[in-house]
Order: sequence, then C-alpha cells, then structure tokens
Amino acid sequence: MMVIMHEAATEADVAHVVARIEEIGASAHISSGDRVTIIGVIGDREEITQLPLEAMPGVDRVVAVLKPYKLVGREFHPDDTVIDVRGAKIGGDHFAIIAGPCSVETPEQVLEAARAVKAAGGHMMRGGAFKPRTSPYAFQGLGEEGLRMLAAARDDTGLPIVTEVMDPRDLDVVCEFADVIQIGARNTQNFLLLAEVGKADKPVLLKRGPATTIEELLMAAEYIVKEGNRDVILCERGIRTFEPATRNTLDISAVPVIKIASHLPVVVDPSHSAGRLDLVLPLSLAGVAAGADGIIVETHPNPEHALCDGPQALPTAVFGEYAGRVLDLARWAGKTVT
Amino acid sequence: MMVIMHEAATEADVAHVVARIEEIGASAHISSGDRVTIIGVIGDREEITQLPLEAMPGVDRVVAVLKPYKLVGREFHPDDTVIDVRGAKIGGDHFAIIAGPCSVETPEQVLEAARAVKAAGGHMMRGGAFKPRTSPYAFQGLGEEGLRMLAAARDDTGLPIVTEVMDPRDLDVVCEFADVIQIGARNTQNFLLLAEVGKADKPVLLKRGPATTIEELLMAAEYIVKEGNRDVILCERGIRTFEPATRNTLDISAVPVIKIASHLPVVVDPSHSAGRLDLVLPLSLAGVAAGADGIIVETHPNPEHALCDGPQALPTAVFGEYAGRVLDLARWAGKTVT
Amino acid sequence: MMVIMHEAATEADVAHVVARIEEIGASAHISSGDRVTIIGVIGDREEITQLPLEAMPGVDRVVAVLKPYKLVGREFHPDDTVIDVRGAKIGGDHFAIIAGPCSVETPEQVLEAARAVKAAGGHMMRGGAFKPRTSPYAFQGLGEEGLRMLAAARDDTGLPIVTEVMDPRDLDVVCEFADVIQIGARNTQNFLLLAEVGKADKPVLLKRGPATTIEELLMAAEYIVKEGNRDVILCERGIRTFEPATRNTLDISAVPVIKIASHLPVVVDPSHSAGRLDLVLPLSLAGVAAGADGIIVETHPNPEHALCDGPQALPTAVFGEYAGRVLDLARWAGKTVT
Amino acid sequence: MMVIMHEAATEADVAHVVARIEEIGASAHISSGDRVTIIGVIGDREEITQLPLEAMPGVDRVVAVLKPYKLVGREFHPDDTVIDVRGAKIGGDHFAIIAGPCSVETPEQVLEAARAVKAAGGHMMRGGAFKPRTSPYAFQGLGEEGLRMLAAARDDTGLPIVTEVMDPRDLDVVCEFADVIQIGARNTQNFLLLAEVGKADKPVLLKRGPATTIEELLMAAEYIVKEGNRDVILCERGIRTFEPATRNTLDISAVPVIKIASHLPVVVDPSHSAGRLDLVLPLSLAGVAAGADGIIVETHPNPEHALCDGPQALPTAVFGEYAGRVLDLARWAGKTVT
Repeated sequence: MMVIMHEAATEADVAHVVARIEEIGASAHISSGDRVTIIGVIGDREEITQLPLEAMPGVDRVVAVLKPYKLVGREFHPDDTVIDVRGAKIGGDHFAIIAGPCSVETPEQVLEAARAVKAAGGHMMRGGAFKPRTSPYAFQGLGEEGLRMLAAARDDTGLPIVTEVMDPRDLDVVCEFADVIQIGARNTQNFLLLAEVGKADKPVLLKRGPATTIEELLMAAEYIVKEGNRDVILCERGIRTFEPATRNTLDISAVPVIKIASHLPVVVDPSHSAGRLDLVLPLSLAGVAAGADGIIVETHPNPEHALCDGPQALPTAVFGEYAGRVLDLARWAGKTVT
Repeated sequence: MMVIMHEAATEADVAHVVARIEEIGASAHISSGDRVTIIGVIGDREEITQLPLEAMPGVDRVVAVLKPYKLVGREFHPDDTVIDVRGAKIGGDHFAIIAGPCSVETPEQVLEAARAVKAAGGHMMRGGAFKPRTSPYAFQGLGEEGLRMLAAARDDTGLPIVTEVMDPRDLDVVCEFADVIQIGARNTQNFLLLAEVGKADKPVLLKRGPATTIEELLMAAEYIVKEGNRDVILCERGIRTFEPATRNTLDISAVPVIKIASHLPVVVDPSHSAGRLDLVLPLSLAGVAAGADGIIVETHPNPEHALCDGPQALPTAVFGEYAGRVLDLARWAGKTVT
Repeated sequence: MMVIMHEAATEADVAHVVARIEEIGASAHISSGDRVTIIGVIGDREEITQLPLEAMPGVDRVVAVLKPYKLVGREFHPDDTVIDVRGAKIGGDHFAIIAGPCSVETPEQVLEAARAVKAAGGHMMRGGAFKPRTSPYAFQGLGEEGLRMLAAARDDTGLPIVTEVMDPRDLDVVCEFADVIQIGARNTQNFLLLAEVGKADKPVLLKRGPATTIEELLMAAEYIVKEGNRDVILCERGIRTFEPATRNTLDISAVPVIKIASHLPVVVDPSHSAGRLDLVLPLSLAGVAAGADGIIVETHPNPEHALCDGPQALPTAVFGEYAGRVLDLARWAGKTVT
Repeated sequence: MMVIMHEAATEADVAHVVARIEEIGASAHISSGDRVTIIGVIGDREEITQLPLEAMPGVDRVVAVLKPYKLVGREFHPDDTVIDVRGAKIGGDHFAIIAGPCSVETPEQVLEAARAVKAAGGHMMRGGAFKPRTSPYAFQGLGEEGLRMLAAARDDTGLPIVTEVMDPRDLDVVCEFADVIQIGARNTQNFLLLAEVGKADKPVLLKRGPATTIEELLMAAEYIVKEGNRDVILCERGIRTFEPATRNTLDISAVPVIKIASHLPVVVDPSHSAGRLDLVLPLSLAGVAAGADGIIVETHPNPEHALCDGPQALPTAVFGEYAGRVLDLARWAGKTVT
C-alpha cells in the first residue's frame, strides 16, 4: 500500500498517518519528493486495508501494490486448475462445450436438446430450473420439477448438468440434482450465496456481472474458494456499455487477463453477451482463440417456441455444425478435446 | 408491440408471424412500406411478451410500445406516493434526510451519530448491520447485535431506522428492528429478495445497481409492489462508467426521469456515488435541485476510525452545517421540511 | 512517478530500471517490501513521462504521482479565473446564462431568440453556423452567412456571441464575428484545433467529449492555455453510458471535481446531455446547485420547425420563466447575477 | 419512421403530426391500439428525418425503421469490397497484417521495423508522422520528415504505407507519400476531415472512436464514400468502459456486426485497445476468429526506447512468431493469405 499525500500536506499530517500505520503494527517508509510525499506501508495486508487512510488529513489517495485476492491468484497457485465433472474435464488443456436451453420447459425439450449436445460432441448440459427474470410477469422456471427433467436427460445421455441457484434456501435441492452449480450474472456479488456454494461439494460456474470488473470477479471467486471449494469456473458473458448493437459487450480481453492473473478455468457465453443468434458462432470462435477453456451456449429444439431467450438460441438442428467448428478451433489452439 | 421485418422478409415470413400472433388471441395489423413491412400487435401484454417474435424467420427487431411496468407507473397512479415512517414523511412535497454511519460498530458510535443527525434536523437514521463487502477478508457487520444498537439509538432520538437486508433468511430479524428495509445496490435484481420484502409490512428503500437502467430499477420496484407492499423509496447512487474521478457516476438525470415515470419517492446517495468527502455537499445540493425527495448520506463521529467507507463519511461535527444547507435548498425547491 | 515491479522481478530488472531513470538525469528511490519493490522517480516530469517504463522487464505498472496538467491547475493558479466577454463576466462568483438555437437558420429566428434571451436576463447568445452532424445528409449550417445573422442579433441586443469552429481554416472568419469560440464535443481532443484557438484572442468554450475523462478535458484545456490563451470555459455536456433514458448521462460530479482541480469556469449544458425538453430545467438547477458558473442551453422560437435538435430546445415563449428560476438559484448559491 | 404517441395524446395531437408529415409530401398511416396510437411515416427518408417529430405535442418517441446509412450498407452493395493497395489485397477472402511502430522516430527504426514485417509475411507498414497526443508536452511526431522515412522503407521492402492525417491542411503532403490514409480514433467524427479524404484517391483506414457506436462508425464511413472514395477499411480498436484492466475494451462483437451490416473490410487493432503487450496475441487471434479481414498492430525494434506507446509494441525480434500464428489462423478461417 502506498499513501500519496497532497502537495499541501503538512509535516503533522505525515506524522499522523505514520502514527496510525504503526499503531496497527505495520511499518511506514517515507519518501519525500520535491512537491509530494509518499508513504509506503508494509505489514499485514488485511489489517492495513482496514485502515481508512484516505479519511486522514493531507492524504490525496492510496494506491494498492498487491492484488486483493490470494487463493485464486497465480502467485499462490501457478498451475492451471483442472476440474473433473463426472469425467468431463475443463481447465489446463482440457476444453469443454456446455450447452442446452435457457430454461427447462418439458421433459421432451430437455431430452432432445441433451441428445443433440451429446451427438455434437458437447461435454455438459445447461438448463435453468430457477430463472431470474427482469419482469415479475415473465416465466420464472419449473423449480424442482425442472431439476428432475435435467436429471432424466443426464441418465439418458451421460452429460453432467450445469444449473443455476439463486436462493440459498434452494441450495440443497439444487445440489441433489446438479453436477455444477451456476451463479448467475445478477448474483456475482451476492456474497452470502457465494459463501454458501463455497461450502458445497460441487464445482461452481460463476458468471461475471454486467458491471463487475475482472478484479471484482476474482474477489467473488475468492469468497467461494475461501470456504474450501476450489473448483470454480469463471464465465465472461458481456458487460454493460453504450453500444446498442448487442445486449452486452463481450469483453473478450477478460479471457487472457483472467488466464494471466488466475489458475481457474474460464468459459465464454456468446449467447447472453450478444443476445443475437447471428453472433453466436463468431463470438464462440473469438472466445476459443482468446484462450477460453470452454463455451457455454444456448441451444433449443424449437427456439421459436422457447419460453425464454428464444431469439439467441441455436436450433438443435444446426448444433452439430456449430460444435464441430468450435471444437476444431479448440484443437488448433492446442486444447485436448475428448 | 411492433414487429419490424427485414427488408428481405418474404410474404410467407409475414404470414407466419401473423399466424403465431393470432394463435395466442392477439391481433396483427400489417403496414407495408416501400422496403419494409411492420406488424403491429394488439392484445394481452403479458401473453404477447412471451412470444419469442425475434426468433421467427424474417423478423429484424421488435419494438415495445407500452412500458413494461404497471403498478409503479404514473399512468396507473398519477399522484405522488407519500410514505410515512413513524411520522417522518417522504414523497410528494415531503423531504427527508436519512443519515448515519456506513456500518454499525459500537453503541456509542451509533448513538453519537444518531444524536448529531437528530440535532441537525435529519429525519431518519441509516446504519448497516449486515454488510456486503467486495473482499471476504473485510469487516462483514455485527448482525443482530448491530440491529439492537440501532434500536437503542432510535429509543434515544426517536429517529426511525433504515437498514439493509441481504439474505431472505434474515428478513424476520431485520423487520423486528428496522423501520425501513434497504435493498443494496448489489441486490437490485435479486428478484427473490424483492418478492420477500414485497410481502413485508415495512417500507423498502431500493437502491439502483451500478449497471441497472432506470427502467430495470422500476421493474425491480414492480416486483416489490406486485406482492402488495406499495411503500417503495427509490435511490439513485451512481452507475459504472469510464470516469475514474469518482467511484461511480451519479446519474442526476435519473431523478427527474423517475419522477416523470413513477409516483414513488426518489432519494439521492451522494456518499456511495462519489466515494469522496469533498463531493458530498455539491452532489446533495444537485440532487435536491433536480427534484429528489430526500438524501441518504453517511456521517460518522470519527471517520478516520470507521470500519467501512470512512473516507466518504461526513464527520458528525460538520453535519449540522451540511444539513442546514441541504434543508434550506429543499425549502427553496418548494418542499415541506419538518 | 512510482514504478511498481512485478513480484517476480529480479534484481537485474530493478537495476536496469534504475539505470534508465538515472540516464535521463532523474533520481530513483528504491523501497523493497516483502514481496514487491517500488521505485520512486524524482526529476523533470516531462522527461520522465517520455520514458516507456512499462515496457521494461519486470515492471508491473507505473503510477503517476503528480497531475499531468499545470497551467489549468489550482496548484499553479489558486484564484478563480474570471472571464469578461464584452462586459458579461463568468467565473469566480459571476454567473452567466448562454442561450440560443442549436443552429442559425434565418435572421428572424436568431433575432427572436436573442431578444428572448436578453429579456429573460441571459448574458450571451449561442448559435451554430458550422454544424457537425452525424449524417452527411443532414443540414450542415449556413457558414459565414449564419455568422452575419448572429452579428446582426448582437448589434440589436448587445449579447455577445458564442459559436462553434470545426475547421482550422474557418478560424479567421469565426473570430471576425464571434466573441467566444466554441470547441464542440467531437473536437475536445482535436489537438490541432486546440492549439490554433490557443493563439486566438477570443475566449474559448471547450466542451467535454462523450468519452473524455475529466483529466483529459483539463489536458485539452492545457493545450489551449499553453499557447497563451488563458480564457477557457469548460463545459460538461454528458458522457456515454449504458443508460438509454437520456442521450448522454450528465456527469454532474464533474462540476465540483473540476472546480476543485482547476481555476477555470465551468458551465453545464442540459440540452445536449439529456436530449429531452422535460429534463432541461431540473438538470440546469442541478448544475447550478453543484457549483456551475453558468448554463449553456438551447432555445428556439419554434422548436417544431427547427432544422436541428428541435425536441430538446426550450420554446422562447417559456424562456423567461426558465431563466428566472435558474438565476434565482444562482443567487441562492452565492453567485453575483447581473 | 414510426411515431409512437403518448397514452395521453389527443386526437388533435395526432392530426397535427399527420398534417406536418403530409406537408412535406410523405404519407402517414395511423394505427390505434387500446392505449396508444402509432403513426407510420412513408416517403423520402432525408426529408422525413429533417422533421423534428419529437418536438410535436403528444409525441412520445420516434422509431427509425430503415438504417441511416446507404452506400456502406450490404443492402446497397451485397458483395464484399476488396481493396487493392499496391498489390496487397484486403477484404472478401483476402487477409492482411498491417504492422509498424506507433511513431516514426529515425530512418533506421522504420527500416528495421519494415524489414521485420516483410520477413514475417506482413502486408503493409504502419507508422505515425503526425501524432495526436493527450499531453501538449509529449512528442508530436516528425511530420513530413517522418513521411519521407516511411517512403524510404517502402522503397526498400515494397510494403505499402498506412499513416495518419489529422489536419486537412496536411492532406496533400500525406497523400504524396502514403498508400492508405488513416483517420485516428479521435477524428472518427471529424466530419470535415472525412469529407476531405472522401475526395482523395487513396484508400482510407477509419478507426472507431472510443465512444462511437457501430452505427455512427458506419455513418462516418458514409461521409467518405458519399464523396466518391469507396475504399474504406474500418478498424475496431476498443471502446471506453468501466473495466480498468485494459486501456479500452476491445468490442470483438463489432467485427461480425459490421460484416453483417456492411460490405467494407474490417481490421482489429489489438495494441491500442488493450495497451498491454501480453494481450496482443490473444486479441489478434480473437479478431481473426471473429471474422476480421486483417490486423493492425504495433511493432518496434526496441520498445523500451520508443517515443510513443512502447509498452504495447511487440519487439520486432518476436514479430515473426506472432505473425506466423495469426496467418495460420487466418488460413484456418478460410482466408487467402499471400
């Protein structure tokens, strides 16, 4: 931590800051320039960050030197984390396609989608039983009944299930059926839910919120890992910007930025970022080329009758062609595709 | 709802869209221009929005004609909602200052802050017992013990309490102590929590999330009101933008935009938007001038020792001067200040 | 300038950075923490910033300690700059309303608008003769003919003229007629144009671009002042964000942020920021309350027939009422209004 | 164009809008729903857009049905534009790497960079002689002397030159030396400069501004094409967002969005978007995978001594390996690489 003093700060201001730093057992190193004094703070990071240094007289700003996360950082854990979900691996050089409908609607719909994903070489199945919807008047998901439909499709195809939990009170029932617990983009900073899934014994797929910085996403993952669950998959799904051509702006740079900073696997969601069917393939390929460990994508047997996000879902009829292209690029990028 | 077809859409595409619209009992009105056909859809709004029109062949885009919210809109309820919190009124021509520390730390701190707020003419007291923190290593609040400290300060000063709930499982205990339940900026679209507080018999202060549009904020309020709780106070607290001089960018336009669209009271939070003490007064005044029904602001007896957000808290020693200025402008703006 | 080294940086990396710093005559101060080394750089700012420190091996990032601007900063010039435009003063405790149509269309339109502004107590007249338009098919302004119409209205009312220059080749003719030269939001970082108006002997009204940070705006002003022209008025007119309810998001915080950092006057443009007539008054009042030295606003005798931005222009018929409210608040805020 | 009336609009309001529409020779089609009336407007697009419909009483908003651009759109010109620059082709299935230093510094530097680009299989050479810099105290480029150095490197390597023009008064001298004229990100909406290069007989590389929407970028290209110059290459180089990990956020979706909407070639600039050397390769690959027709990238013989943007420039020593990877992916994507 470095404290940059105002140009007009007095010696008393500097002495006061130093005293407060030393009070908590940290040490202060003063370097005085022509116009500005800087105080370096060395000591226990957690204790130092509790000090409201910026509230002290004469302080202009405080610059963090070390990253705020630990367990999810590469410094702590240089090797890539590889997560094994019922035999489907993701992370390191393992690549996975996770696909399925936005929401679970009928047993037939789920089964048809799962079979198409399986036939195309996909590795996991996604589908929402509990749905966060902007409007209270929209379809909110089938709940436990939907989870049972997913489990039936898993029995049929062998594909592990990725599904969202929104309410800590639903965590038990979701864990009963799911293989990977998804935290949606509106819950990236729902710290209670993060801590709860951190105690679960299932891998977690953590989506980045539309106004969450990459560092905040990593801090959200830290909440999970801190509780003991080290199997976290991060998901880039677009951020909010001024550009109206897409629903969100896929922050493709987040993929290599995260791979450099963290050992956790990263997947890209081309469906929710763009909200446009005609961008799903190019954005999936961009994700793979940028270094993603997987893609999570929507597919539906009949998008025109979907109860949720139909316009962005790939029809299962074309899913094989799509997945073939994605997997071929993953191989080009040096990934193992099974 | 209007469906704008692609220039290249065929007659069969148009007929197919019309058929789907009529299938759900709505009616379709075709108007064909030189290059583009538009289909107007008239019927039950909820049923129409369930149709994934944009997934149908030949459809370019769909334009909503009516607003997606109802209960919170002025069309439905032209008169301003006035909320009475233990005698403190907000909304219509009633103006309120809500003030207190970011987090509850000790009985003395809360009491000192509450007395300063009361002495300055403030109307309600805020303070966090359950704290959402970006870092799992930061102070997370005192929980029920903190709620009891707030209640003791209320007994002393008579000021009603505004405090945040994050977990639906804490709602009962929060309702036991709080007078207004706050939904924080990270939970604006936590639809489960919204529905739960919609069933509570306490007013709700709903903060806008940093990536939430005004329309989405109104939809979040609709979630609450739909459950029967009509006492919702909306709070503008800044949105995420590229500008680094402030922590968030206070969207001052949101104040008049909401007042035009909705009958609910609106308050401005100058502390969290800017994250800078030196901007608290000018942003508070801007909020009042723009038409806000109140201000929610942080004050602390000793910001330098605060466990949370000290740098942006007004010292209680200057709170009287601050509040005097804000209330004087509220009077200028035509508000009743009691 | 402080150089923060990577955790993995070697001693050789540190030595290399130090050598490069000393090579240009600056001095390096090393402070080594447990995990990270920081190098403070002291010396001539211009020379130091030319060093591509971040390109050197082992460097994580570089943090600027001093502000990049000088002449426009309060450190350099603590007293408010007051600009006198043919007797109309702005800055310090002088407040000014600048008003008129988006574009100059006819002698009658300009004259009618100017008279309304004058009658309402306005201080300067704005009007575009050279118009930047997103579409090449839109009305592009009357050019020199428009400037003559503005001059005629000045002769009639005595109001000084504020008008935009876009092309350095037009600067002479604009200076012949204008009293204040406006640099539009698309030219905030047109450094050539800035340098040219920096040599002119007219005050400059510099608009903030929609993606320009406050610091970049001050650097743009520095371009002008560096050439000798110290009479620069800064204008906040909204930034681009994800919020669709307004055309741009008025960054009201920019007003106090600039007033703290710089001695230059600041005005707010409520018309272009919102693009909505119903927000013009509340945003103007917010600007004044936040500390602005003036307002620049569009008014038109007949907005419905305007050739440019009609929907956001105040009809001249209501301009008196509007200006009365704005000026009254300016007085409340402690400004001198003449 | 469709005019959506307010719910409270009167019949007189509707009649008035219709009258204004018919006044300019267009026709109005009224469709009245339960709560809202919509007026479709059919006629000459340019004349209709001149009407300030939103300023008329009772109008809620106006929705454009047709795209605002014509010449650059695929409707007008379905086949991909292929541009031939001294034998180097770009667009359609032709892929090109454009590389070189940020700014031209010495004859040796340019020559060394150009030879590295040539040896690696690059197709054009970039280098700035006129430099837009945020600070007036930074290196501003060598001007005509720099252009001569570029020309000498072209003589040596045969690589065509891409270089920026900022000032219309420099256009003649730039055209004398350059093969492709670059319009920088700060001049995307410098409409005068666009019109001037529209009259030049050299291809133009038009960069997207950091706050420019894709539609506005296409309108900027329309300004150029409208003057007769149909050889425009569009460049995605990042937009301004809240994410601080990268200098700008590369909007990778812009690549397929533009390819769908327009026939013009699109290139990606991984250097300026991220401002980080470690992201140059992954972002380049993402660009190619998303469908870009080329990459424009910075390379420098000695980034550590660069006068501009050194930290993001690839050292020429590794350029061959970089380009090999990019070109291999371009082949995978189905491009012709020569």
